[in-house]
Formats: sequence, structure tokens, C-alpha cells
Amino acid sequence: MSTPTGFGPRPEPPYYAVIFASLRTPHDAAGYAEAAERMAALAAAQPGYLGVESARGADGLGITVSYWQSLEAIQAWRAHVEHSAIREQGRATWYEHYELRVAKVERAYGWSRPTPESLEST
Amino acid sequence: MSTPTGFGPRPEPPYYAVIFASLRTPHDAAGYAEAAERMAALAAAQPGYLGVESARGADGLGITVSYWQSLEAIQAWRAHVEHSAIREQGRATWYEHYELRVAKVERAYGWSRPTPESLEST
Repeated sequence: MSTPTGFGPRPEPPYYAVIFASLRTPHDAAGYAEAAERMAALAAAQPGYLGVESARGADGLGITVSYWQSLEAIQAWRAHVEHSAIREQGRATWYEHYELRVAKVERAYGWSRPTPESLEST
Repeated sequence: MSTPTGFGPRPEPPYYAVIFASLRTPHDAAGYAEAAERMAALAAAQPGYLGVESARGADGLGITVSYWQSLEAIQAWRAHVEHSAIREQGRATWYEHYELRVAKVERAYGWSRPTPESLEST
């Protein structure tokens, strides 16, 4: 089933998640925003890409979780030339610290607030 | 090795991640903040808890990833009486939508900006 804007998809497990938690430096907000947008579009065009969820708080700590069909798809995205170049720029300028985890999604579910319409139909 | 404040730990995989992505309603910010703080403290006291990462953007979309030693630890936390009660309150008041995924972390690494001291020592 489809999920609201901003949420990853809900395919049948197993599939894979790349959990990227990062702390931004205060430098180059415009360059970072542009690169993040470009990377999001490029990732979405890769084979095996399923979707993404992303949030960054006012304290500079952000979490982006991208979802993939297979480990092979993740490895191919990791090796993508433009992605590799941007990663170097991230280390040089944008990030203070990051943690990256590759995980196999084994179970998943979602919940939505019932709409007035759906309540009427029950 | 230890990670900076705000980041989860870096134990040897495998371990487990609960990826909770949620969209807040505009309601009851104070009640939500209090409950979130209480749940964070309670989770940290559970057997098998490893750590947590959390971020919420200005658009109301947040991601919290908690890390656990085993599926059994996750199931026990899920069944915790106080946690269950708060979950009901979340559906009644605080959340518009959420997606929850349980995933097995298979590979993990981190990166920190080198400090001036560490550069001097190389």
C-alpha cells in the first residue's frame, strides 16, 4: 500500500535500509541543500531504490533512511561516481560526525489517523 | 568505540534497529514532549537496549531509531505496560501517521571530523 508524502514505501519484507545519522557543521548551508536535493534525485533513479525518509532537527542532528531492494543495489549506489564525490565534499565541509548502518528490514507496519470519511464508512 | 552525544552506539553487528518515522499533529506539544522524555528514559532502562538516535524537522516529520541487542528485547519493550498506554495516547492525540520497521543491522561504521589534536599527532 502507498504511504503519505515523506514516508518510505511499505513493500513486503525483507528489504534493506541504510540508516544515515549525521551532525552538520554550520558551514555552507546553501551548498549542502543543493547537494542533498541532487543526491535525493540521483538515488531515486538507481535500480533497486524503494524510497526515503529524512528529518533534521534544529540542533543539526539529522537522520536519513533510504530503502533498497537488495544489498547489491546499496553497493552500486555507494560506488556511484557522483555519490562518491559528494561524500568527499561532505567530509570536507558539511559533516561533523556521522554513523551509517545497513540493516535488513524483517517486519514493518504503519498507522494512519482515520479520516472522517473512513469513520463514516465503518 | 563510543560515539558523540545524540548518536547510537557502535557494537559489533548483528544487532537490531527499530526505525520509527512519524508525522506529528499540531496538538499537545507539551504533553508529547513530556511523554517522549519519559519513554526515552524508560526504554534506556530496558534489558537489551543499546541506544537511540532521534530527529524531528520543522515540517513535523520525525525519525527515531532505537537499537537493541535482540528481537526478544524489542518484543519485551513493545509489551511494556506503560509503553503500550503511551502508544494509545499517541494514536489518539499526537500522531497523524507513522511507519515502524524492525531491521537487523548487518554492517555499520562511523566517521568523525579529525580534531586539530588528532591531525597534529599524525
